[in-house]
Amino acid sequence: MDYETPQFFRVMQYASRADRDVVDMVSGNPDWEPPQPLREGLRAYADSDPDEFQYPPSVGLKALREEIATRRGVDTEQVLITNGAGEANHLAMTEGLETMSGSEILLTDPVYPYYAGRASLLGAETSFVPADENGHLDPETVREHASEETSVIVVNSPNNPLGVTYDGETIRELVAIAEEYDALLVSDEVYDHFDYSGRFESALAVDSEHRLVTNSFSKSMAITGWRVGYAVFPDPDGQHGELLERARRRHMLTNVTGSRPVQQAVLHALRHTEPSYYEQNRALLRERIDTFTEALEAIGAEYTEPEGSFYVMARFPEFAGSLENVQMLIDEAGVAGMPGEAFSDSRADWIRFALVTPRVETAADRLATFFE
Amino acid sequence: MDYETPQFFRVMQYASRADRDVVDMVSGNPDWEPPQPLREGLRAYADSDPDEFQYPPSVGLKALREEIATRRGVDTEQVLITNGAGEANHLAMTEGLETMSGSEILLTDPVYPYYAGRASLLGAETSFVPADENGHLDPETVREHASEETSVIVVNSPNNPLGVTYDGETIRELVAIAEEYDALLVSDEVYDHFDYSGRFESALAVDSEHRLVTNSFSKSMAITGWRVGYAVFPDPDGQHGELLERARRRHMLTNVTGSRPVQQAVLHALRHTEPSYYEQNRALLRERIDTFTEALEAIGAEYTEPEGSFYVMARFPEFAGSLENVQMLIDEAGVAGMPGEAFSDSRADWIRFALVTPRVETAADRLATFFE
Repeated sequence: MDYETPQFFRVMQYASRADRDVVDMVSGNPDWEPPQPLREGLRAYADSDPDEFQYPPSVGLKALREEIATRRGVDTEQVLITNGAGEANHLAMTEGLETMSGSEILLTDPVYPYYAGRASLLGAETSFVPADENGHLDPETVREHASEETSVIVVNSPNNPLGVTYDGETIRELVAIAEEYDALLVSDEVYDHFDYSGRFESALAVDSEHRLVTNSFSKSMAITGWRVGYAVFPDPDGQHGELLERARRRHMLTNVTGSRPVQQAVLHALRHTEPSYYEQNRALLRERIDTFTEALEAIGAEYTEPEGSFYVMARFPEFAGSLENVQMLIDEAGVAGMPGEAFSDSRADWIRFALVTPRVETAADRLATFFE
Repeated sequence: MDYETPQFFRVMQYASRADRDVVDMVSGNPDWEPPQPLREGLRAYADSDPDEFQYPPSVGLKALREEIATRRGVDTEQVLITNGAGEANHLAMTEGLETMSGSEILLTDPVYPYYAGRASLLGAETSFVPADENGHLDPETVREHASEETSVIVVNSPNNPLGVTYDGETIRELVAIAEEYDALLVSDEVYDHFDYSGRFESALAVDSEHRLVTNSFSKSMAITGWRVGYAVFPDPDGQHGELLERARRRHMLTNVTGSRPVQQAVLHALRHTEPSYYEQNRALLRERIDTFTEALEAIGAEYTEPEGSFYVMARFPEFAGSLENVQMLIDEAGVAGMPGEAFSDSRADWIRFALVTPRVETAADRLATFFE
C-alpha cells in the first residue's frame, strides 16, 4: 500500500475535470456555514492596527491557548497552536518516535492516509492493527500488536473513515497500553463535535503522561482551509516533558509560527459561538446519514452506520473500491467518493462517501440508478 | 554558539516586561501600514462562500502561484506557497541536504539564527563563511570553504543582520560555486523590496538548476504574522526536479497546506498595490537610517550603513553585544536591540537595531544620553 501521496487531491481533480455534473463526496470539506462570529472576527481583524499583523508568539496567541486550555481542562503551557491538526499530528508522531523507547509506529487498519504517509516520511517501521468487523478498535488486538518496540500509537475518534466513536473504556485501555510499553498514544479528535452516539470520550479524560491529543477547528467551524489546530502535550514538568520542548523547537524552526489572522478570528468565534451552532450541524449530518444509508440499503449495498464523523463506507455488489471504479462512478453516475483502497488493502472493496454536500439525496438517487 | 533557540522571542519578552518605556528595535516587525488592498482582500474574503473556506491546493492557490510566477518570470509549476519564508527555507535546506551530494551546509558568519537552527535540527555539518570587513560576501572566500562535501549554501540578500546587498556578479559567482560542487544555492530574498543601493539582483536572474529562491510578503507587505511565503524551485523536469517533488510531499505531510484567507488577501494586494506603496516605505526607512546612523556617529560608535534590509549593527566603545548588555540597555536606556552574539561569535561586540519603529529619533537620543 502506497500512502506517500494521499489520493484526495488526485480524485478531486479528476472529479472537477469531469464532463458532467458531479456530486463531490471525496474530501471532508464541510459545506455548511462557519459560525457567524468567525466571519465577524476576521472582519474586525482586517481593521486592526499594523502591530496586530506581526508575528504572534511561536506557540500561538496567548489568549487562544488560554481559551483552549480552559475548555479542555489543561494548563495553558501544554497547548501548542499549530498549522491545523495536520502539523500537530506531524509534530506528535515525529517527537514521539524520537523521544519514546522503541522505533515502531502502530496505526489502525483502515487508516487515515496522512498518518501512514507521515510514518513513511519519518522512515519508521509501522504495524497496522485491524479494526473489528463493526469498525471498532479492540484494545486486546492493539495489545497483541504492541511490544517494547512500540513508540507511538495513533488513533482517531470519532473515526475517519469508519465513522465509529471509541468509548471511554477503549480510550482508557489504549492509554494503559501506551503506558505499559513506554509509548505515546496520539489521539486525533478532530471530529469530536460530530459524535452522534453520545459516548465520545477524549483521551484528555485519562490522566497520563503517555497521551497527546490533537485537534483543530477545521471541522467544528467548517474551515479546513484556515489551518488552526492544536496539540495538548503531556505535563511539561513530567516524565515526558521533553516532548513539548522538542515539538516547540521543531514548530519554530519549520513554521516560525502559525498564521495570526485566523487565530484571532477563531478565538473570537470560540468565545461567541452558541452551542446551538454545533447542534444544528450534528442534526444536519444525522439527516444526511439517514438519507444516504437508506438508499444504500435499497441498493443492497453493505455500509457503515456512523456513530461519529461524517463518512459512510459502502460495499456495492461486485464493484471494487478501486480508483478506476471511483472514476467510473464520477463519469457514469455523477457521484465522487474515495477509493477504499486509499485507506487499506482490507477495504479495497469499499468506497468512502463524505456527507458534506447538500445534494446527498441526489447522490443517493444517482447511485440507485447506476446500480439498479 | 547555540543557535537552537532563536533569542528573538526571549529578548522581546524581556523588553515587554521592563518597568519602563522601551523603544522596541528587536525583531524585524514592520510598524508601517500594510497595503490598503490587503485589508480589502481580507474583508472581502470574510464575506465569501463556505467553499472558499476549505482546503486550497496543498501547493497553494493557483491564481497566487500564477501571479508570483508571472512577476518572477518562472513557470507556475516551480512555485510552492509556504507558511512564510521560514517554511520555504526549511524545505529547501532539508531537501537540498537529502538530494544533493555532500552532507555539509555552508552558512555565512554572521548568520540569521534560524538558518543555523535548521541546520542543527537536520543534524547537518555546518561551515561558516565569514563576511568581509564591509559586511559583503566575497565569492572567493565562499569557494575556499566549499568542497565536494558541500550540499547546500544559504545566503540572504539584502542581508540580515549586516544590511548589505549582494550585486549580480556575486550572485552569479555563488551559483557557479553551487554548480561546481553539485550543491544547491538557497537564496533568501525577503528584503528584496528594501534595497537602497539599486544593485540587488535575484538569484532567479541566473539560469541554473542549482539555485532555489525563497521569499515572502512578511516584510514587503508588513505582515510578518500572516505567514505567506514561497519558494521557486529549479525546473521540475530538470536534473534536480526531485527537489520540488520531495518538498511538495514534505509540505503536504507536515502542513497539509498553508492558510487560505491570507493567500487570498495577498493575491488581491499583489494585484492592486501601486509601486508607490513600496517606494514610500523605502523612503521612510532611508530617513530612519540617516537619523540613527548620525546619532551613532555622534556617540563615536562603529556602525554598518545599510544598502538594504532595515537593520543597523553598532559597536559601542567598551560595551559588548551580550544578552546582559542588551538587557542593561533595555532597563537603563529604554532601547531594545538584539545581541550581536545571536548572529555570530565574531559579532559579540555588536548590537543589531531593527529600524521598525516611528521612534528611531527617541532611540537615538536615549542611546546618546546613555553613552555620553
